[in-house]
Amino acid sequence: MLPRVDRLRAEMTIHGLDAWLVTDLLNVRYLSGFTGSSAAALITRDQAVLITDFRYAEQAAGECPGLALEMVESHWALGAKRAIEKSGAKRVGFEGYHLNYRDWSELSLILTGVRLVPQENLIGRIRYVKEADELALIREAVKVADKACEHVCGYISEGIEEREIAIELEYFMRGLGAEKEAFDSIVASGPRSALPHGKSSDRKVKMNEFIVLDFGARCGGYHSDITRTVMLGAPDDRQREVYETVLGAQEVALRAVRPGIQGGDVDAMARDFISEKGYGEYFGHGLGHGLGLDVHDGRILGMRSDIVLEAGMVVTVEPGIYIPGWGGVRIEDDVLVTDDGAEILTTAPKHLEL
Amino acid sequence: MLPRVDRLRAEMTIHGLDAWLVTDLLNVRYLSGFTGSSAAALITRDQAVLITDFRYAEQAAGECPGLALEMVESHWALGAKRAIEKSGAKRVGFEGYHLNYRDWSELSLILTGVRLVPQENLIGRIRYVKEADELALIREAVKVADKACEHVCGYISEGIEEREIAIELEYFMRGLGAEKEAFDSIVASGPRSALPHGKSSDRKVKMNEFIVLDFGARCGGYHSDITRTVMLGAPDDRQREVYETVLGAQEVALRAVRPGIQGGDVDAMARDFISEKGYGEYFGHGLGHGLGLDVHDGRILGMRSDIVLEAGMVVTVEPGIYIPGWGGVRIEDDVLVTDDGAEILTTAPKHLEL
Repeated sequence: MLPRVDRLRAEMTIHGLDAWLVTDLLNVRYLSGFTGSSAAALITRDQAVLITDFRYAEQAAGECPGLALEMVESHWALGAKRAIEKSGAKRVGFEGYHLNYRDWSELSLILTGVRLVPQENLIGRIRYVKEADELALIREAVKVADKACEHVCGYISEGIEEREIAIELEYFMRGLGAEKEAFDSIVASGPRSALPHGKSSDRKVKMNEFIVLDFGARCGGYHSDITRTVMLGAPDDRQREVYETVLGAQEVALRAVRPGIQGGDVDAMARDFISEKGYGEYFGHGLGHGLGLDVHDGRILGMRSDIVLEAGMVVTVEPGIYIPGWGGVRIEDDVLVTDDGAEILTTAPKHLEL
Repeated sequence: MLPRVDRLRAEMTIHGLDAWLVTDLLNVRYLSGFTGSSAAALITRDQAVLITDFRYAEQAAGECPGLALEMVESHWALGAKRAIEKSGAKRVGFEGYHLNYRDWSELSLILTGVRLVPQENLIGRIRYVKEADELALIREAVKVADKACEHVCGYISEGIEEREIAIELEYFMRGLGAEKEAFDSIVASGPRSALPHGKSSDRKVKMNEFIVLDFGARCGGYHSDITRTVMLGAPDDRQREVYETVLGAQEVALRAVRPGIQGGDVDAMARDFISEKGYGEYFGHGLGHGLGLDVHDGRILGMRSDIVLEAGMVVTVEPGIYIPGWGGVRIEDDVLVTDDGAEILTTAPKHLEL
């Protein structure tokens, strides 16, 4: 059984739970290794059960050697009921944000003598700290994104459409072995660079304007997420100042990342830096998030985040300045918290001028 | 306001509902036109309200001209409460499969004098029948898939990996203007063709074996979904027989599609055809599904489906035979139900031999 299952059991003890019902598919994958698209899991004090249907019988047996299998013909809730009753569990925690009303109501109806206890983000917090196999996959995904960044910087030329750049990025990453892009790539140029989530459009990139590239790769289920802001031609004074301000804020934050510091404090240091330069109102989002099976694996470096950094966490550090109608800059690295500081995983250069 | 909103109001009257709370994002988009990634909507007898947060203020105003906007700073449930209370609605329907336990419980807590009534698939059923703008987008998505099919049939050669074929398909469709692939393309060759959802692997395609290609495009939010089974070289007698059986079953089903027939009856006709040839046990899935904002827009042609076909529905017709360890064949077209029969939208040829 994976160490993470023991970490979950320790949490179950703290919360007085006999069992934990996992309905979020990423959490099911995290705890069991199952990669199919329909399953739940039940973790008890001494057992782990995967509940899935007959389509996945062979796959489940192959991917989840340490788990008992509870196969269902129709609704998974019937399998959950059987697994819960066999285990004798009386207090069963569940994921309130990942169980829909209908399934909860079905389950409540068919279970007798069992209390279903909603408990938020318990596995989420366990997932913050990566195990060795997870880290290896994240490193792979970061390496792919770094190479794609280098490639696409040579590909961008005047008049090319944002969406052509996005397609090239994603195609190139898959050619390097990525399963897929981590998310729809953001390529936002000129005034569109002021949109923090500008996706990509048919706008043609021009000289002397910001081009924000925000993309990542998925390898073995794990994600990277990188942003670079680049330009054809040369920046004017204000563009230079905004770029240097974001870069400076990122450097401050990268130096601050270490075990023991609160996520919100790292965010505040970057935010203060930007505010002191007069751009505070233009940095509207949190400094960064966790990375893992999900691209947004927890708002670890969010504004006012009280999450204390620990060795093994992987976070993004991505300050930005977005001036509506004018343009924006964001620079984002993926960072591993180490025993005595941080290792910046992203190696793509941070030159504004292409 | 879109005609679909009136269709929803007629359903609300039948179910004695004063308002309908929409929490599924695709349903929000369907009813409001809003394409952002965080919103809910409330449809009352005389108003339509979009509930979203300040990040989306500008986008919502642009995309949803006929709707009132209810902006929230934190949890959308607070905006839903305000909208419900302003409207005076007392019985509010909601989507039980698309509201998580936590949000339902929050909403129940903050609403007073309002009954929340779970009601399934009410908008889903309205979505089965496409309006003109939706049909135009589906036709576009089908055209892209057809062209990609032709292209990739010229691209496949001995020794190429399944995943290279999948990448080429998806890259080509985006080059033609698709927003994205409709889903992770299935490219399954040799014994893997017996897996109905074989995705694509690093297996190299060989001569004289089945290659199942199942893919589609997304254009303006709407999907196509097409499957062809092809082969380098020539089939042996059994391969030929299995292919012809699937093709024959599809032809029977395509001729049966028309308004007034039950989906399950169309499925049964294809299934009986395959059974009579002795392959009944190897056709394990339903004959087809609806197509629209979702790739699987209702199990319209599912086994035992009691959905009665109506003009304007778009369905896939995709019989298959999957013989474990040996191989499989699936052939899939996208079909519009017309006033007096059916229009087959897919035009890609159905030759087994490349």
